[in-house]
Amino acid sequence: MAGMALLLGVDGGGTGCRARVADPSGTVLGEGAAGPANIRFGLRESFAAVLAATQSALDEAGIGLGDREIVACLALAGASEPTHLAAARAYNLPFARSLITTDAHAACVGAHDGGNGGIIVIGTGSVGWGIVGGRECRIGGWGFPVSDEGSGAWLGCEAVRRVLWAYDGRIPSSGLTKRLLERFDGDPHAVVRWMGQARPRDFATLAPAVLEHAMRGDPVASELMHEAAHHVDVMAERLCACGVRRLSLSGGLAASMEPWLSAATRELLVVPKGDALNGALRLAQQEYEMLSLARPIARRG
Amino acid sequence: MAGMALLLGVDGGGTGCRARVADPSGTVLGEGAAGPANIRFGLRESFAAVLAATQSALDEAGIGLGDREIVACLALAGASEPTHLAAARAYNLPFARSLITTDAHAACVGAHDGGNGGIIVIGTGSVGWGIVGGRECRIGGWGFPVSDEGSGAWLGCEAVRRVLWAYDGRIPSSGLTKRLLERFDGDPHAVVRWMGQARPRDFATLAPAVLEHAMRGDPVASELMHEAAHHVDVMAERLCACGVRRLSLSGGLAASMEPWLSAATRELLVVPKGDALNGALRLAQQEYEMLSLARPIARRG
Repeated sequence: MAGMALLLGVDGGGTGCRARVADPSGTVLGEGAAGPANIRFGLRESFAAVLAATQSALDEAGIGLGDREIVACLALAGASEPTHLAAARAYNLPFARSLITTDAHAACVGAHDGGNGGIIVIGTGSVGWGIVGGRECRIGGWGFPVSDEGSGAWLGCEAVRRVLWAYDGRIPSSGLTKRLLERFDGDPHAVVRWMGQARPRDFATLAPAVLEHAMRGDPVASELMHEAAHHVDVMAERLCACGVRRLSLSGGLAASMEPWLSAATRELLVVPKGDALNGALRLAQQEYEMLSLARPIARRG
Repeated sequence: MAGMALLLGVDGGGTGCRARVADPSGTVLGEGAAGPANIRFGLRESFAAVLAATQSALDEAGIGLGDREIVACLALAGASEPTHLAAARAYNLPFARSLITTDAHAACVGAHDGGNGGIIVIGTGSVGWGIVGGRECRIGGWGFPVSDEGSGAWLGCEAVRRVLWAYDGRIPSSGLTKRLLERFDGDPHAVVRWMGQARPRDFATLAPAVLEHAMRGDPVASELMHEAAHHVDVMAERLCACGVRRLSLSGGLAASMEPWLSAATRELLVVPKGDALNGALRLAQQEYEMLSLARPIARRG
């Protein structure tokens, strides 16, 4: 191995995985992408995606995998589970140093450029993360169906519940309940058959219809958005109690959720400075700097 | 085949299956029991249990399976799903006539001795059924997690949600949340690992702790019982709108739920005259009488 060490940041989620390589000063040299990398669904598949995205980023940078020592931060969905995290840390990766953390942590670091602040990720799932004076605070994100309130999966499940309520005559039908029942040819038994196989991301495919109908004032969709926003407000309150004073939102539903949030939550909101990939690269850079103090990682320049 | 025809009633649920044989006047000759018979989880297993329970009832009556023509009503969990019901009806059963219906329908017939009325079954799942002037009305029971509000599975899932809220600091801990978290050695990640494999009946195993703590005034448990009871009240209102004026409760949580129901619901309540097995036998008897008008089923006496 020769030349400077390289920094690698990876943001690995349930739908895809992105990698970015940079020099130790943070100058980006290449980027790549690959398939899902949630470690809850298999370490081997997750790391295959991480390495494919990394290879693609190195290709763009014109560097071979063995050419330089790599200090990596892999920010992976599912890494908050201690058993999965321990297994991931024991995995043999071709990097000089691998820091493994959660995608929510990296998103928080990216949003506030390493400073104090909080983030609420609202996508297929939902989770809150805060960093205040080096202390971390995590809220929610324990998974569907017992957690992830206000997320796409939660919205989809609650929407289906109301489709069946309307079918039973427990609530009046609305544009939303009619539209969703039509997707199942008007047959509640087809809803139930679908539900038997549905994963969180399948429930989340119904969320855009909820958002769309809520914008038009549909009463069922509006009530669901109010409930979802209330859950996000409670997460924000809790982050606030942990000392968070700047809050960012990220994830596929973040922009649509914002107008439904309370004034108190909206007052905290700041535009994120970067995303989870920025955060992962910054964490890799911090790791590199700590290691450099301890020992020379590689010959410089 | 010789002698009178026999009536057979079977109540087949997700945890077990009971059979009763009677003569055409309704005099009980024998009873038997066997394993689960929910047809959603496999027709072959379901009918093996039905036949084992039937054989055991015939043994008690001292009658061989081929000795008499049998008019059967099989009331089976899962039979409200049209695909499963059609497959069950096409199954080759050793009975002269087999009427197949849902356990909720038979419970309603049993509760009101074939007369007008409604039933709400509150066990692992929840479902409402009404019969008014020959017309049937069904509410809920579409399955966890999109339906079955107020049931044991629903209560268990909502209790786990609150355990995690308390762990996050989103709500104050209570005796209930502490007790449930202790079951998982105080580790929310253990809750999440358990949840990943949990079926509705697993969630329902947490319901007794909710009931017990609610009786003692635990705020989290009491709020959950109020919510559960509200869902049952809405089902009762809907049955009322279908013309139901007499309502019974059945299932493992029925007695514990009753004090939490609204005055309006409680005013409708009557003690059930019989259970789903009584209902199934009565439906078999009605079927027998209809067939007897059309043709002689077997030589009488």
